[in-house]
Amino acid sequence: MPLIRTADAIRSMEIRGAGRIARAAAGALRDHAEATETADRVAFQKEMNRAAALLRSTRPTAVSLPNAIHIVMRGLEDADSAEDARGIIQRNADAFIRSSKEAVAMIATIGANQIRDGDVILTHCNSEAALACIIGAKQQGKEIEVYATEVRPWNQGLLTIEVLNQHEIPTHYIVDSAVRIFMHEIDCVITGADAVCSDGSVINKIGTSQIALAAHEARTRMVVAAETYKFAPRTLAGHTIPIEERPGSEVLSDEAARKLPYVRVRNPVFDVTPAAYIDGIVTETGLIPPSYAPFIIRDHLGWDLPMIADDTT
Amino acid sequence: MPLIRTADAIRSMEIRGAGRIARAAAGALRDHAEATETADRVAFQKEMNRAAALLRSTRPTAVSLPNAIHIVMRGLEDADSAEDARGIIQRNADAFIRSSKEAVAMIATIGANQIRDGDVILTHCNSEAALACIIGAKQQGKEIEVYATEVRPWNQGLLTIEVLNQHEIPTHYIVDSAVRIFMHEIDCVITGADAVCSDGSVINKIGTSQIALAAHEARTRMVVAAETYKFAPRTLAGHTIPIEERPGSEVLSDEAARKLPYVRVRNPVFDVTPAAYIDGIVTETGLIPPSYAPFIIRDHLGWDLPMIADDTT
Amino acid sequence: MPLIRTADAIRSMEIRGAGRIARAAAGALRDHAEATETADRVAFQKEMNRAAALLRSTRPTAVSLPNAIHIVMRGLEDADSAEDARGIIQRNADAFIRSSKEAVAMIATIGANQIRDGDVILTHCNSEAALACIIGAKQQGKEIEVYATEVRPWNQGLLTIEVLNQHEIPTHYIVDSAVRIFMHEIDCVITGADAVCSDGSVINKIGTSQIALAAHEARTRMVVAAETYKFAPRTLAGHTIPIEERPGSEVLSDEAARKLPYVRVRNPVFDVTPAAYIDGIVTETGLIPPSYAPFIIRDHLGWDLPMIADDTT
Amino acid sequence: MPLIRTADAIRSMEIRGAGRIARAAAGALRDHAEATETADRVAFQKEMNRAAALLRSTRPTAVSLPNAIHIVMRGLEDADSAEDARGIIQRNADAFIRSSKEAVAMIATIGANQIRDGDVILTHCNSEAALACIIGAKQQGKEIEVYATEVRPWNQGLLTIEVLNQHEIPTHYIVDSAVRIFMHEIDCVITGADAVCSDGSVINKIGTSQIALAAHEARTRMVVAAETYKFAPRTLAGHTIPIEERPGSEVLSDEAARKLPYVRVRNPVFDVTPAAYIDGIVTETGLIPPSYAPFIIRDHLGWDLPMIADDTT
Amino acid sequence: MPLIRTADAIRSMEIRGAGRIARAAAGALRDHAEATETADRVAFQKEMNRAAALLRSTRPTAVSLPNAIHIVMRGLEDADSAEDARGIIQRNADAFIRSSKEAVAMIATIGANQIRDGDVILTHCNSEAALACIIGAKQQGKEIEVYATEVRPWNQGLLTIEVLNQHEIPTHYIVDSAVRIFMHEIDCVITGADAVCSDGSVINKIGTSQIALAAHEARTRMVVAAETYKFAPRTLAGHTIPIEERPGSEVLSDEAARKLPYVRVRNPVFDVTPAAYIDGIVTETGLIPPSYAPFIIRDHLGWDLPMIADDTT
Amino acid sequence: MPLIRTADAIRSMEIRGAGRIARAAAGALRDHAEATETADRVAFQKEMNRAAALLRSTRPTAVSLPNAIHIVMRGLEDADSAEDARGIIQRNADAFIRSSKEAVAMIATIGANQIRDGDVILTHCNSEAALACIIGAKQQGKEIEVYATEVRPWNQGLLTIEVLNQHEIPTHYIVDSAVRIFMHEIDCVITGADAVCSDGSVINKIGTSQIALAAHEARTRMVVAAETYKFAPRTLAGHTIPIEERPGSEVLSDEAARKLPYVRVRNPVFDVTPAAYIDGIVTETGLIPPSYAPFIIRDHLGWDLPMIADDTT
Repeated sequence: MPLIRTADAIRSMEIRGAGRIARAAAGALRDHAEATETADRVAFQKEMNRAAALLRSTRPTAVSLPNAIHIVMRGLEDADSAEDARGIIQRNADAFIRSSKEAVAMIATIGANQIRDGDVILTHCNSEAALACIIGAKQQGKEIEVYATEVRPWNQGLLTIEVLNQHEIPTHYIVDSAVRIFMHEIDCVITGADAVCSDGSVINKIGTSQIALAAHEARTRMVVAAETYKFAPRTLAGHTIPIEERPGSEVLSDEAARKLPYVRVRNPVFDVTPAAYIDGIVTETGLIPPSYAPFIIRDHLGWDLPMIADDTT
Repeated sequence: MPLIRTADAIRSMEIRGAGRIARAAAGALRDHAEATETADRVAFQKEMNRAAALLRSTRPTAVSLPNAIHIVMRGLEDADSAEDARGIIQRNADAFIRSSKEAVAMIATIGANQIRDGDVILTHCNSEAALACIIGAKQQGKEIEVYATEVRPWNQGLLTIEVLNQHEIPTHYIVDSAVRIFMHEIDCVITGADAVCSDGSVINKIGTSQIALAAHEARTRMVVAAETYKFAPRTLAGHTIPIEERPGSEVLSDEAARKLPYVRVRNPVFDVTPAAYIDGIVTETGLIPPSYAPFIIRDHLGWDLPMIADDTT
Repeated sequence: MPLIRTADAIRSMEIRGAGRIARAAAGALRDHAEATETADRVAFQKEMNRAAALLRSTRPTAVSLPNAIHIVMRGLEDADSAEDARGIIQRNADAFIRSSKEAVAMIATIGANQIRDGDVILTHCNSEAALACIIGAKQQGKEIEVYATEVRPWNQGLLTIEVLNQHEIPTHYIVDSAVRIFMHEIDCVITGADAVCSDGSVINKIGTSQIALAAHEARTRMVVAAETYKFAPRTLAGHTIPIEERPGSEVLSDEAARKLPYVRVRNPVFDVTPAAYIDGIVTETGLIPPSYAPFIIRDHLGWDLPMIADDTT
Repeated sequence: MPLIRTADAIRSMEIRGAGRIARAAAGALRDHAEATETADRVAFQKEMNRAAALLRSTRPTAVSLPNAIHIVMRGLEDADSAEDARGIIQRNADAFIRSSKEAVAMIATIGANQIRDGDVILTHCNSEAALACIIGAKQQGKEIEVYATEVRPWNQGLLTIEVLNQHEIPTHYIVDSAVRIFMHEIDCVITGADAVCSDGSVINKIGTSQIALAAHEARTRMVVAAETYKFAPRTLAGHTIPIEERPGSEVLSDEAARKLPYVRVRNPVFDVTPAAYIDGIVTETGLIPPSYAPFIIRDHLGWDLPMIADDTT
Repeated sequence: MPLIRTADAIRSMEIRGAGRIARAAAGALRDHAEATETADRVAFQKEMNRAAALLRSTRPTAVSLPNAIHIVMRGLEDADSAEDARGIIQRNADAFIRSSKEAVAMIATIGANQIRDGDVILTHCNSEAALACIIGAKQQGKEIEVYATEVRPWNQGLLTIEVLNQHEIPTHYIVDSAVRIFMHEIDCVITGADAVCSDGSVINKIGTSQIALAAHEARTRMVVAAETYKFAPRTLAGHTIPIEERPGSEVLSDEAARKLPYVRVRNPVFDVTPAAYIDGIVTETGLIPPSYAPFIIRDHLGWDLPMIADDTT
Repeated sequence: MPLIRTADAIRSMEIRGAGRIARAAAGALRDHAEATETADRVAFQKEMNRAAALLRSTRPTAVSLPNAIHIVMRGLEDADSAEDARGIIQRNADAFIRSSKEAVAMIATIGANQIRDGDVILTHCNSEAALACIIGAKQQGKEIEVYATEVRPWNQGLLTIEVLNQHEIPTHYIVDSAVRIFMHEIDCVITGADAVCSDGSVINKIGTSQIALAAHEARTRMVVAAETYKFAPRTLAGHTIPIEERPGSEVLSDEAARKLPYVRVRNPVFDVTPAAYIDGIVTETGLIPPSYAPFIIRDHLGWDLPMIADDTT
């Protein structure tokens, strides 16, 4: 997909979900490198930096986006020629896309192991990694049921129940407000993550922290499925993740809003679930407690503080 | 409004909110008494019992409905004639409707006193009593702001923000999942109630208990505005309030549902907020803690256990 | 049963359970009044006071015991003759025994209403009132299951599972330590009470407060079934209920203990469950929150502070 | 003490403690009635209203002050003459002062009963009622120890340790910040109250709610000693108690403050302890749970909503 | 001890406790290697695999068992001859047994350091490591007291109080239900562990999680003593530990059970204590928070995900 | 500053704050090495050991003190001559002082990143590292406000408000008891630490744990700023940090105390905040959750258990 088109698709939420966004950005950079025909190394790098900046600007909260871009652009400054640089980007992008998919497969297995035969699972939004765990449990031959939320205002729950229906998993579809009333029937909540912070808190779709709170209240297990590229390096340096707020028209039509001058829509896309409400995070490196996050950022992803201070992350 | 039309309007949720339902039922019984032209006392009573049963069947959870019917029908068995019986119903119905409105006015004053200048209030659904408190505070000259939720699947939040807009109260409109992210900006949550149980728990619009939980977590004050006729006598006898579950088509169109054979919509209308999450209940008899409920049922409403055992309540 | 024999049977726990103890004491006083053949009013009263004191001394924690004695002895000081006094005691005792049984029947109905079809109940020890609720639910045609604990060191759980087996109620028998592991399968915990204090706390068989805590942790409903004569008047005057500690030989044989000079058995019979862990108390006056206790003591039982100061209660 | 002098002494905190303030105000009204020599009934009443208003203005939070004034002024409007009115005030004032002292004696007994032999008590500030409970336990022959806080900025703890020292009660004196570190050694926290609200929350000396929170955390018992005239009628009507904020110079000298233009002292005198952190309130009517407050206001003190709406309370 | 005899002794709980089981299994493999006289390398390995499988099957929950077997069998596939293989097993087994004992000694020192002079300790079941900490504190000259539970249905508490009595440590022996009533006298709870999971939760004797909950409620310190070979590698791959359920006849005699057709004994041997209720885990590598578990599994024990996927662990 | 003078200044709290104490001790050792003119290596080492022991004895709780001494003395035993040894100490001391200051700068940046524009911060005591974070946020151009406590009995809050005033940061000065009443206005609590234990708990100025508890209650973020040399190695070996208790005369004058023979001042200087109440620790290695402490002690500071057993740490 051409760069501009990808950027638009991410910004408009046509492409959604941290993993899909990351792979789309990697693919767009690779395609843009191929499409950028200059033989001048400096001009090539400049153009790729511009492309990276464009992609980074589309969704301010999504940590997988700058992580993917950083990985794809890694080593570019050592290239001898534009051709060489182009090759680096192609190899980095392909490797990232492949390892991202393998991560989902490993997470699916580990997360499926967490689910016992007969369990009732609740999931929120439309997380590829969380769904992979659920489908994995089904494929292990376990009889499971799922509760899936509607996920206002974008109703991503519709996508979720379509996937679950395809896999013939009995599913209950509920409005977001109905989570607590069914919590006593739930054995395990599994959601994805948009970002995991160095203090173990998780940034995910708006509503996740309410669900985690209700799970915590009933001591129902709360598991987050997250590839390691969702662990946010900059949080190790104390940075907080800006919570993206999208147009109010997603909730209330502009026409209706115009008649209500005293009313203002607030439309944050994510919220923060504290580490204390999360029993475990399923990563491709294993099931870890949330407070293990600095180890993932530092020892697994290989970041250190000086690199984080660098603004490109 | 004719009886059938009223019953339909309550069932289809055209008439919504415990107070409005109660007054509509009282009015419908009064109108039906007038329209029932028989001079035979027994036939008249039989017809009114039928009417009462019809109205009672429309919404199983709404305790205000049988309470109102019980109050309107009170003393009917002592009538000397159909004419006399008709008069009893008219007087009972008018008295109930009037005292119900006065209760809202008193609740508005007490609830408004609970709100301090500068407070930010969150409300859920479209409760006449809760809105009266908020508007009362505004009319006391206090500067306040409100957060109002969307309230899926019926979006009663739209009605709420229209009322608040009319009263020129600055209002933030949010999806149901966004309550927790804004909780630190909220000074007080005020909701209505469909029923208050003898153990102090409150039955209200689905989602209320999640909001109360999030308020409790942040130690934000949670206040319920409830006329005393919403206190459920039968709960004193240990009965639980059946939680009405409405058609799945309110959440997922039948057409979409047909393509998803493994998916089933669950659509409960109410949930139960435990007493421990409620700081106070504003009634027309004053601000009380939730555990004061048996006193309201017994000493204020005048029920005792043998009466409750009677199935008409 | 003769007085001495009854006192022994209560002390040795042959007669167990607050209700049975209370009725046995009332019956013993009545029988002792009949057996005390003196015609001298003063001598008769003196003998009855001695009998009352003997009975009161058998179990220091059981509040039903002094309550029953107080009710049976009420009005004795106004008797004109020994004969008259004997009659008072007979009538008081019969009335108490009858109303105590009626209370259990009413509690059974109210408690059964609290149980929903399909519920799984956990009970601890061998409470007549709690079992009546469970059996009542079964008799209402509800399908229920029960978890019953072993209740060391007296294994009263054996009595409980025999009763449940007779009523053909599927029952799981577990050691006292296994409560928490099964809590997620429990819909409602129902226990009896030996005493209810004016601050709403409940004194019951050792282990009850641990179970209530585990129920609270999982937000499983915790209901106590208690006749009103178990509400302790003296707690309104600030008195605490002494927790009876029974011989260590009930836990460790004297022979084994002799070989372990550094080991001392601690064998308290009751513990205190705080009001915050109790969702409701089922009494014959209805389902109430625990904090309603002072109303029961003052308005229902008719005690006031000066009477309580009197040491005979 | 003359009126002006009393008002000054209350305002400057020379007279401190809700009970002492109430009795001082009653005495000042009585003395002022005697000193007001006019024979004109209307002029007399006017002067007494002025006196009452002056006293009411001295401490905005202290609910005992308007309560006492209301009780002393009760029936004044029915007086036939100035002489008659003077007599009413004298009788009312004497009765209030006497019953206030009797209340403390009854509270001392009930509160002392709450304390067991060997208990370690923590108290905060210098509450007459709380100290009476502690001294009462000592006089019952119980061996007790006390932790007393310093109570910045007025160091009322010094008064408290002097009283405890006089009664030869071993006492540990600690800074306000050291409460939590010693909480595991404490069996019971006992404080007084400046006001009890209809929702069961307690207004008391700044710091009380922190202590109650630390007691709640460790499940240490928290008891409040409060005469019934401290229950605030206006809270039944939803009014909140204004928290008095005193001059910053009590914390930071004006001289020091002048050099720190960016610094502002905040000096609230009271805070609000939620009902959930209070195990029991010791009143002269018995030990009650906090949620019993509306009963005290309505049934014991005899207020109803229309009276409360009246601004003089 | 011969292999069959050892397997029987583990299965019948004659050999109990994770450490003793692990060392017994290691010893049995070593002895079985010696007794297996074949000179054929393949036949030898086959026989040893069969022996390992037999031992693994005896107790499904005990993670120390497969850990010990894995360590003893390590490197077997590289042996040149049966003789060589026999030597590998002997050396591995001896090294494991020695290091397991050294681990207990190191844990004893670290755990003893956690105990302060005058502390009152509660322990549950009969954990070698936990007892070592307590005895270590005594040997450091600290005056301590212990509460030990009975531990139904096997009464391992009897073994515990015998050991404590031998070390002249004053001990209180209580039924399992009496933990909460004594919790305010306890300074520190110390238990062993059968397994520590990668999310920091601990599998231990049934009842441990109830005790941990009661400790958490009173903020009493909860410490687990666990050798690192009890950290369960497979949990890093998301596997849950199966909770062994033993015959009902351990709780209710078969004879009694036969008369109670509606009663079924549930007899789980272990429960899961969540990480949030554990203040620290004492290992031979130091005192760590429970969430440090993945580090122990990965960096200390040297497991990685592919190895874990291998079924022999 | 000469050795004796430095030791006195640390003991008398003229030099306060873990960082300042550590650097003062390092400086004093360096100066003392220079002043110790002997050419005899053994005599020199003996003298330096004596100096180290003197410094270590001044404040038993401050872990930064033995850490600094250990770092400064490191490698001394390998010196060839007194001259060589003197040089080692000089280099070590200078390096420690420099890196300690750089740590504060890094912490300031990371901590400032944690603070958002418009945040209201609460701090307790006079922590260099915590103040650096606050001032850093101000220097990043963020508009912030601060609440600072008085910090009895030494009133270190006065130093804190002077520093904040110099940096023109609007500050509210409150007594220690007023923390909870303002907690709803606070976005983030930031304090320093005297020691961080291997279980993630934090030792800091008396009162810190009460503030953390109040923050936890309201789910207000609690951040601790701590250089890594404040992580206490000996806690990994299970040692608890002794809580220093200073003279009662700091709280109550000796003259006043003499008149109160039943009163004893308790004056602990620090308390322990459990890890569960701390959202993150800002170190110079990044923002970490408290349970990451063993990693800091082992992997960052390089301690292992045998070294810790060594008494000099």
